Amino acid sequence: MRASVMYSVGDVRIEDVPDPAIIEPTDAVITVTRASICGSDLWPYRSMEPSEAGVVMGHEAVGVVAAIGADVTSVKAGDTVIMPFAFSDGTCEFCQRGLHTACVNVGFFGTQVAGAQAEAVRVPQADGTLYVLPGGADEALLPSLLTLTDVMGTGHHAAVVAGVAPGQTVAVVGDGAVGLCGVIAAKRLGAERIIILGRHPDRIALAQEFGATDVVSERGDEAVERVRELTGGFGAHAVLECVGTEQAIRTAVEIGRPGGGVGRVGVPHYPAIPAAETAFFANLTIGGGPAPARAYIDELLPDVLEGSIDPGRVFDRTVTLDQVPDGYQAMDEREALKVMVRP
Amino acid sequence: MRASVMYSVGDVRIEDVPDPAIIEPTDAVITVTRASICGSDLWPYRSMEPSEAGVVMGHEAVGVVAAIGADVTSVKAGDTVIMPFAFSDGTCEFCQRGLHTACVNVGFFGTQVAGAQAEAVRVPQADGTLYVLPGGADEALLPSLLTLTDVMGTGHHAAVVAGVAPGQTVAVVGDGAVGLCGVIAAKRLGAERIIILGRHPDRIALAQEFGATDVVSERGDEAVERVRELTGGFGAHAVLECVGTEQAIRTAVEIGRPGGGVGRVGVPHYPAIPAAETAFFANLTIGGGPAPARAYIDELLPDVLEGSIDPGRVFDRTVTLDQVPDGYQAMDEREALKVMVRP
Repeated sequence: MRASVMYSVGDVRIEDVPDPAIIEPTDAVITVTRASICGSDLWPYRSMEPSEAGVVMGHEAVGVVAAIGADVTSVKAGDTVIMPFAFSDGTCEFCQRGLHTACVNVGFFGTQVAGAQAEAVRVPQADGTLYVLPGGADEALLPSLLTLTDVMGTGHHAAVVAGVAPGQTVAVVGDGAVGLCGVIAAKRLGAERIIILGRHPDRIALAQEFGATDVVSERGDEAVERVRELTGGFGAHAVLECVGTEQAIRTAVEIGRPGGGVGRVGVPHYPAIPAAETAFFANLTIGGGPAPARAYIDELLPDVLEGSIDPGRVFDRTVTLDQVPDGYQAMDEREALKVMVRP
Repeated sequence: MRASVMYSVGDVRIEDVPDPAIIEPTDAVITVTRASICGSDLWPYRSMEPSEAGVVMGHEAVGVVAAIGADVTSVKAGDTVIMPFAFSDGTCEFCQRGLHTACVNVGFFGTQVAGAQAEAVRVPQADGTLYVLPGGADEALLPSLLTLTDVMGTGHHAAVVAGVAPGQTVAVVGDGAVGLCGVIAAKRLGAERIIILGRHPDRIALAQEFGATDVVSERGDEAVERVRELTGGFGAHAVLECVGTEQAIRTAVEIGRPGGGVGRVGVPHYPAIPAAETAFFANLTIGGGPAPARAYIDELLPDVLEGSIDPGRVFDRTVTLDQVPDGYQAMDEREALKVMVRP
């Protein structure tokens, strides 16, 4: 089959690779209907150590089950399924508590196993990982369903961890796809005021359509000052950190209201959480991590199906598998917000 | 009156200072029945910039109201009161949410205003700050009542923020007075297993009497490894960080179970919270700060009055006002765990 293979910085190739097959009895193989390129794929795209074997990329997919292992019971060939970015057994104490990304058998597509920017993908722990869409998937809903594999679940996780509650003022640091989904999540959870921190006009416009009420385009200390001005000097009740840089987490901490929460979902590219004293004296709570996207599908899917949220709008470009390298380049150069792949 | 005045590192003197008096109509003056020396008083004792005027120290007191300002309505002369370490108005949005240490009119005794290691102390925002004990205070209960001004409330805060719940495994980093109160708090909130990290035999013995089930006397990586061994490899559900050093907070983060919480109440003597990636990939929540001791009295006082908790046992020495300098020295040299002052 054809797949997207990354070899080094900026080097993504579409190649023929062996077809995925059942290896463990708990595996499934799915034919990919839609995959996507994630903002987090840009980190290796920009900094990967050269690899001779290459890595089949991609961790977000909606697909159709092609084959299952002998022990798989909850999905069957022909099922349309959502494949979250991590696989998980669904039965360990962490999965039972809804933290599938801490599963004792967790693994990540495009990292531990071959990824989904391909015609097909092997899914370990199929019973715990795949979410079946009983009626199949309406073509028009595919983009939003695809966001449930990662970005929408991740934005929701930031909001949940930050403690977003009705009537609150929420700040979202970052106007990438996750930040925009964070806006959707904050509004969905009842935020009254949503401040988006970002500076890309088209993304800001989408954030406003999703429910952002205020825009802060400054950065660093100026951004902190601006948010304080907007919030009577106290900061936001909940802050969603959706970038992962040291500046972003510092800003997130510094704009938090005393007693408030910071939900960080940007993969940290910083060794320590800055402003430890600021956070302490404000009694801020800082949480977050890889979102248990699998756990959140139950809650988010009905809203997607009934159209009350439309996170699929974060996809502003669709490519074929052959065009995936162009998709990476477009996202890297910020010409595209998020790219959907139609193998 | 006589008061304890700190001038520089190791230099605490008992001196005659002007009697406190009502300045604002919201003030009260209380005669101090018991005060104490706090572990946090040791930070300036060890690092204070020399001050010509000196600082009247102390932020924990039980006393009797001697005078009130014209606007004070909830306390009257003769009332026995608990004076938490911070003053607060009791009416702002933060006080109403139970976060009195973020009050818009907050201030700290021994810092913004003269402290309580003295015969008397002026209490700003008396209505919001003082907690009246309607029947006065039984002499035998004075030590435990005194802990409600700070250390017991602080240990409880760490446990609340860390999310301690029935049946959990809780780790307490630090065997000082706050750590020991953290053990009491964790047990009180239903922890099944309580691991104390510390190495002072007498304090560990007290921790065990308070409910600690396991002791880890190692430090750093060895402590992390030991806690992991004790917890099936996963770490503690809730971790109470009661020290404030970089090593302590690093250990606290590294022994947290995925999805767990760290409650930090040791005043941070570190600029950034280390192990940002470890915390992220474990979806740990890190919170805490100055405890709203005033808010917790309602919950903790009944347990003190009925004797189901006895946090006053953290006091292992009582001194007169004249002996306060010796008290500092004893705590600095770890000859005393916590010193009560009987003016």
